[in-house]
Amino acid sequence: MTQSKATRYSDRTKFTMGKLTSLLVLLHNDEMGGEIEEELARRGYRYTVGKVGSMDLVKVVAAIETSAKANHVIDPHAYREVHSLYHAILEAIQGVGRGTVQFGDILRTVGLTFAIVRGVVDVSGDSSEWISVCIYGTIGAPKKGFEHDALGFGYNHI
Amino acid sequence: MTQSKATRYSDRTKFTMGKLTSLLVLLHNDEMGGEIEEELARRGYRYTVGKVGSMDLVKVVAAIETSAKANHVIDPHAYREVHSLYHAILEAIQGVGRGTVQFGDILRTVGLTFAIVRGVVDVSGDSSEWISVCIYGTIGAPKKGFEHDALGFGYNHI
Amino acid sequence: MTQSKATRYSDRTKFTMGKLTSLLVLLHNDEMGGEIEEELARRGYRYTVGKVGSMDLVKVVAAIETSAKANHVIDPHAYREVHSLYHAILEAIQGVGRGTVQFGDILRTVGLTFAIVRGVVDVSGDSSEWISVCIYGTIGAPKKGFEHDALGFGYNHI
Amino acid sequence: MTQSKATRYSDRTKFTMGKLTSLLVLLHNDEMGGEIEEELARRGYRYTVGKVGSMDLVKVVAAIETSAKANHVIDPHAYREVHSLYHAILEAIQGVGRGTVQFGDILRTVGLTFAIVRGVVDVSGDSSEWISVCIYGTIGAPKKGFEHDALGFGYNHI
Amino acid sequence: MTQSKATRYSDRTKFTMGKLTSLLVLLHNDEMGGEIEEELARRGYRYTVGKVGSMDLVKVVAAIETSAKANHVIDPHAYREVHSLYHAILEAIQGVGRGTVQFGDILRTVGLTFAIVRGVVDVSGDSSEWISVCIYGTIGAPKKGFEHDALGFGYNHI
Amino acid sequence: MTQSKATRYSDRTKFTMGKLTSLLVLLHNDEMGGEIEEELARRGYRYTVGKVGSMDLVKVVAAIETSAKANHVIDPHAYREVHSLYHAILEAIQGVGRGTVQFGDILRTVGLTFAIVRGVVDVSGDSSEWISVCIYGTIGAPKKGFEHDALGFGYNHI
Repeated sequence: MTQSKATRYSDRTKFTMGKLTSLLVLLHNDEMGGEIEEELARRGYRYTVGKVGSMDLVKVVAAIETSAKANHVIDPHAYREVHSLYHAILEAIQGVGRGTVQFGDILRTVGLTFAIVRGVVDVSGDSSEWISVCIYGTIGAPKKGFEHDALGFGYNHI
Repeated sequence: MTQSKATRYSDRTKFTMGKLTSLLVLLHNDEMGGEIEEELARRGYRYTVGKVGSMDLVKVVAAIETSAKANHVIDPHAYREVHSLYHAILEAIQGVGRGTVQFGDILRTVGLTFAIVRGVVDVSGDSSEWISVCIYGTIGAPKKGFEHDALGFGYNHI
Repeated sequence: MTQSKATRYSDRTKFTMGKLTSLLVLLHNDEMGGEIEEELARRGYRYTVGKVGSMDLVKVVAAIETSAKANHVIDPHAYREVHSLYHAILEAIQGVGRGTVQFGDILRTVGLTFAIVRGVVDVSGDSSEWISVCIYGTIGAPKKGFEHDALGFGYNHI
Repeated sequence: MTQSKATRYSDRTKFTMGKLTSLLVLLHNDEMGGEIEEELARRGYRYTVGKVGSMDLVKVVAAIETSAKANHVIDPHAYREVHSLYHAILEAIQGVGRGTVQFGDILRTVGLTFAIVRGVVDVSGDSSEWISVCIYGTIGAPKKGFEHDALGFGYNHI
Repeated sequence: MTQSKATRYSDRTKFTMGKLTSLLVLLHNDEMGGEIEEELARRGYRYTVGKVGSMDLVKVVAAIETSAKANHVIDPHAYREVHSLYHAILEAIQGVGRGTVQFGDILRTVGLTFAIVRGVVDVSGDSSEWISVCIYGTIGAPKKGFEHDALGFGYNHI
Repeated sequence: MTQSKATRYSDRTKFTMGKLTSLLVLLHNDEMGGEIEEELARRGYRYTVGKVGSMDLVKVVAAIETSAKANHVIDPHAYREVHSLYHAILEAIQGVGRGTVQFGDILRTVGLTFAIVRGVVDVSGDSSEWISVCIYGTIGAPKKGFEHDALGFGYNHI
């Protein structure tokens, strides 16, 4: 195969911010994760990847919010940015929880990796900033191995 | 870089079924999608990828279910397989809907790609079959461009 | 065993209104259903049993409400009675739906029997009227046999 | 009483945007409604009041969205504004629906007045634009008089 | 303006119990709050206004319930009255929570004022007692100023 | 009446597994409870009945899960069986909670009896194992007598 890498991967420059966020969380330890990060940087997007494991829902919410603030994805002093992130986090947790936003209260625990990406998106000729949160990991009983994959995604204007 | 591709991609053989399902739906048009499909085939997993766009929720449920049956991911004559798939689909749609399982009823439409994967998973020394459903696409107003990314994921024993 | 029937069944006279409602819907075709009805009559409770099958949620709600009115379990001209019944019905349907109050919209159909009972209950030395609704039947795919049992229960002051 | 009107009503100039929105929908036909509108105008807020009655949820969502666009509360060509309004509307409808975002599907109808207000809010020394939606009216059976008050409220950054 | 106050405010005597409850919580510190209270008294309605701030959901439920009992809006010894109030409180909290009945568990706190009104309402020529609960205040991050308005409303027969 | 008991009760041998589970929890202290248990044994079904009372939701989930494991209804070492049971428990709790899966968090407590039944069911000529969970008891304020009946039911393939 004589295709250059640039050619082969050209579609990746067309990935939406949401797809990049999802791939970042799924592949940050994979070779392709590096390419995703390069694309995020090239676009000037701010992003971070973090981990949190807990039966305690509030710790999960707090870990994601803290990570976004500490890594300058949002401005912690601007309420509107915190508000935007918060709702994106809750949306992502709804995908992880599937039907009820509860972990330890219903005897399940999570081990999660999350990615938060924020940047300018062109929508219908209009450029404005949006934020997306993707959470991937395991959910299950508080017993090693008694768990399966979980994935959630939230998206908001910022 | 002198690493062989096999070395670079070695972790991908350790991806969980859920991660493979998620990457399949996100990357089926990408070069990496081919590698994901190779891994699925190597493991003997049954899978399919399909598309559905609608304001009508029931059409989305039906399209995913029909695709799984038509492509032999599940046995359409076995109620337990249909039951397992159905709940995995609903879980995935909860991630897409984030809070309410409604599309047209609340004036939003979806354009979705879905992947369904089914196969043997080793859990705590126990081998049994599971099914996972990942849905990726757009959700938004019934006006071109007034939409953003959505992602949902469901997982069940089969 | 030399116990008389009266002795054997003595506890049944102590059943709560909710338990009687549940047993009525589960056993109305069984010999024991007759005993349940006798107990309801002995207490002066008003009750009815009906059936409804549909993919259309609103038809289920309407069938139960209409049955209660037509059989004089509630006064159709008294809004407070209609209001009380309505919320008891919705509660029972939540048990049938388990997580989402939707049938056909998510490609499932129901075949249900319902019982509605209304009467005076002694609570903490206070006598007042309450209503209970129990729904039992099947829920599943719109394909014969691809369905399983479902049960829901609602209770309200009237 | 010798207090001047300005003195008596002075607190009203300190009302939050959300309180003004709620009072606008509750009092737009009352004398005090005029004062609320004056305060909104004084602050440079954009607002509108409208009505919608239906068993059809999507018509309620559409009526509120259309009114906001037609009355220049939001820019109909800016997806981020439409996105912000949409989530505020859904939040308000959750308050009206209390537990499930459904009207006709569960045999209830609504007769609603809504107010939408959008403007700059000072939060922690940070000035930015927010939107609030308040819905007030009746919800009940599709029979005149068999209905009671309902109220819902949503709020979002824009 | 030569209109008498009685004339100007005449519509207020036609306000529904739910509207009076909502205005009471929004305006109890405003001059108009006094007029609302006069109207409640004139109708012989029992009512109370209270405040509660917490991240702990159960404290909010308990504070409202306790206030209604302590201020004789309901009879604390009558289970049916407690049951009626309880469901009205939960409905109002659903409006405050918009989608999930959780505060501290999802890292948000509330500062709320609530009004509870109970009295005879004429519905379709039928007079019976109802109770309404309106909650107004702020919801947000546990950081001063990082919060916005919230409003919820519940209504039940008693 | 000269019908033999066997004849009179013949329909009971046709009861679905879900109906048997529901009757077991409702009637385990009644004479008919013995007949239900005989039928379960005759079919080779595994089952158990237990009790749990708490304001703490997680204790309810844990008690049901522990009882199923301790009484060999499921294999505690097989994740797929634990997964199947878990979702059936959650479904049953949704029926008990009616709208929100919360007990103490919203100031209510439960006193519950539960039955778990697992066995082979013939569905459309296909024989496979399913599990059903029925929960019956009281839900209410943390004050003796201020409570009413509650019922929930879950069903899953195993």
